[in-house]
Amino acid sequence: MKQSRLFTKTRKEAPRDEEAKNAQLLIRAGFVHKEMAGVYVFLPLGVRVLKKIEAIIREEMEGLHILPVQSSLLQKKEVWEKTRWSDEEVDNWFKTTLKNGTPLGLAFSHEEPLTAMMKNYIQSYKDLPTAVYDFRTILRNEKRAKSGLMRGREFFWKAAYSFSRDEEEHQIFYEQMKDAYKRIFQKLGLGAITYLTFASGGSFSRYSHEFQTLSDAGEDIIYLDEEQGIAVNQEVFRDDVLKDLGLKKEHLVEKKAIEVGNIFSLAEKFSQPLDLSFQDAEGKRHYVYMGSYGIGITRLIGTIAEVLSDEKGLVWPESIAPFRVHLLVFGQNENLFREAENLYHDLKNAGIEVLFDDRDLGPGQKLQDADLIGIPYRLVVSEKAAANGGIELLKRKSGDLDYLAPDRVISYLANEKES
Amino acid sequence: MKQSRLFTKTRKEAPRDEEAKNAQLLIRAGFVHKEMAGVYVFLPLGVRVLKKIEAIIREEMEGLHILPVQSSLLQKKEVWEKTRWSDEEVDNWFKTTLKNGTPLGLAFSHEEPLTAMMKNYIQSYKDLPTAVYDFRTILRNEKRAKSGLMRGREFFWKAAYSFSRDEEEHQIFYEQMKDAYKRIFQKLGLGAITYLTFASGGSFSRYSHEFQTLSDAGEDIIYLDEEQGIAVNQEVFRDDVLKDLGLKKEHLVEKKAIEVGNIFSLAEKFSQPLDLSFQDAEGKRHYVYMGSYGIGITRLIGTIAEVLSDEKGLVWPESIAPFRVHLLVFGQNENLFREAENLYHDLKNAGIEVLFDDRDLGPGQKLQDADLIGIPYRLVVSEKAAANGGIELLKRKSGDLDYLAPDRVISYLANEKES
Repeated sequence: MKQSRLFTKTRKEAPRDEEAKNAQLLIRAGFVHKEMAGVYVFLPLGVRVLKKIEAIIREEMEGLHILPVQSSLLQKKEVWEKTRWSDEEVDNWFKTTLKNGTPLGLAFSHEEPLTAMMKNYIQSYKDLPTAVYDFRTILRNEKRAKSGLMRGREFFWKAAYSFSRDEEEHQIFYEQMKDAYKRIFQKLGLGAITYLTFASGGSFSRYSHEFQTLSDAGEDIIYLDEEQGIAVNQEVFRDDVLKDLGLKKEHLVEKKAIEVGNIFSLAEKFSQPLDLSFQDAEGKRHYVYMGSYGIGITRLIGTIAEVLSDEKGLVWPESIAPFRVHLLVFGQNENLFREAENLYHDLKNAGIEVLFDDRDLGPGQKLQDADLIGIPYRLVVSEKAAANGGIELLKRKSGDLDYLAPDRVISYLANEKES
Repeated sequence: MKQSRLFTKTRKEAPRDEEAKNAQLLIRAGFVHKEMAGVYVFLPLGVRVLKKIEAIIREEMEGLHILPVQSSLLQKKEVWEKTRWSDEEVDNWFKTTLKNGTPLGLAFSHEEPLTAMMKNYIQSYKDLPTAVYDFRTILRNEKRAKSGLMRGREFFWKAAYSFSRDEEEHQIFYEQMKDAYKRIFQKLGLGAITYLTFASGGSFSRYSHEFQTLSDAGEDIIYLDEEQGIAVNQEVFRDDVLKDLGLKKEHLVEKKAIEVGNIFSLAEKFSQPLDLSFQDAEGKRHYVYMGSYGIGITRLIGTIAEVLSDEKGLVWPESIAPFRVHLLVFGQNENLFREAENLYHDLKNAGIEVLFDDRDLGPGQKLQDADLIGIPYRLVVSEKAAANGGIELLKRKSGDLDYLAPDRVISYLANEKES
């Protein structure tokens, strides 16, 4: 698209009340607008990133035959009362009230309503296993919301819930999901610094698993075995756990990290109180064995802004960048502008997503904006570039600079894989 | 996909408390689950319809260079207080409270917060015109919610807001949007029974425009000039309005209808109190001239269920059907089953979306389910069909029945356009 059509503008300064680096960068670059502490509006560039992350996750969910649902934000007291409804049980509920005075919950999660819903569809062992996933806005009444997009009062996530006959069947799915999560973080460009981390499994299973991305901005402490590539969360950093996992204390390094995903074996924690059961082949009833699997998408964007940025601005991985190419033209020289216009159309026709900075601004401002926005490939059409043999190509991540003949640009980009 | 993987099941009866035909059908066919009055969870088949409608609308928005945002559900009192915050001013607010006692609104619309947000991006006449659109969940605290998906307490909509320099510039965009809306309803299969309807423009413009779909289940009354293809809403059914529009009372028919979309000229209604202004080329300041444009997507699905169904069930238009083809196999004869499996894979490979009823159920149940679910093309692999020359093809809408040689099915469907 043409940047002159993009209403957002970069800002030199983030709002004064914004403490988190991730939100500062994303606001300055025009990806999000801060509505209030912990609540961000996604702007056009931000929506593009959101949609790309959603597509990566969706592909992995569909690959495991998990089915999409769109669950509700308004939630019934009657359902939640069976497990956790009061503010003592859940410390971050937002609640509201119907006109007739009936109290309602605003979704902070969906274990209970989806468990209750599945009673309509699961009766026999033949109905199992099955699983559903959901992309949706979630509300959590956090007392403090100072970490930008990493801990929102309103955020966007993917949640999945699995329903199995027993622990054995569950375990097969759980391992598949673990692998899917690894692939997701790999595709998002976080693979090298994201570790499978053992955490508390609650009262129902030995462990749950978190995916923790190393970052000094992280709110979590993990103990990482760099050689084995696994970690334990602070809450289970105990001798018996280390022994059980075959980890040696002296090999572990303490690190700050951001929890970007988690997977839980729920066992019968929700199916029992909400009475979600099935009949086996012999006519005996059993509670359904459940699991839950979350990824906070807005938190992911915050994490990427936090860990994949430099002093100049954001550095998007190609897989989720709002555009693949940022095309800049310097000056208003008619021939140069026409060349840039032609290149813009050629790129679009070749199916390459391109943001074309056609604005009437000086080179300095355009370069600064491009650095801040962080699109992987920058093409510059300018007199200097022409003198150097054509179009200037800069890779945002490595800083590698090259000059390409105009007719080589498309084939170069078509063959280029992210290093 | 294989129907054996689809956890939803059809139901003979809707829940006893469900009065609306649209919700009864959608629940019975497994598209939605009723969470509470006015609140529905979308199930896998329903999500597929939702996504297709979203794609049709998105294409039209992008065609007009409208940019996507994802606005927030949590809303600030300070912003809304300038226009309408109290329950007297807005009779269907849901509200909630932060832990520190700060009251928040839950979005029933976004005029105010988006107007306030745009103050960051609109300063000069060079920043105009621009427009944004948003797909999101909206909450409205309706006293009664008995119309199924047609009036939800929680629903999914597309809203768009335009920002122009003056009425003249606004009017150009408004007309483009009007045309886009007409194309949208055409693509959704509602074109023939959906009419541009003149409604009150409030205190700021002469008229607003609604798109009204004829239905006995409608909550609105319109007066339709069938020849000219336009209507007036009950609220402006007055002699002076008819004269202004060149309509003759004796040519108008009173009809019940469902409002599936609306477009408003807001003029300075929100830009003035929220102080969204710009500087013109001469340095003079003006308030931005705004418009708003809504389509309730869940209401649309309810409307389509209401008006495009028959006594057997739903009848989806091809453009938004959850699948294009419903493939049924009768009996467990190994050869027939293999033939159906092969056809299923051939259809998928040809890029034709197909739901394959591979369940171990009798023909009667499968046919009944297929009628209820309402997929446009039904293919039956059975001994009877084989005896008649191959595969049975039934068109859900017309009821036309045909037999095709197995090797002709793909090419037939590839060339077939919805009648």
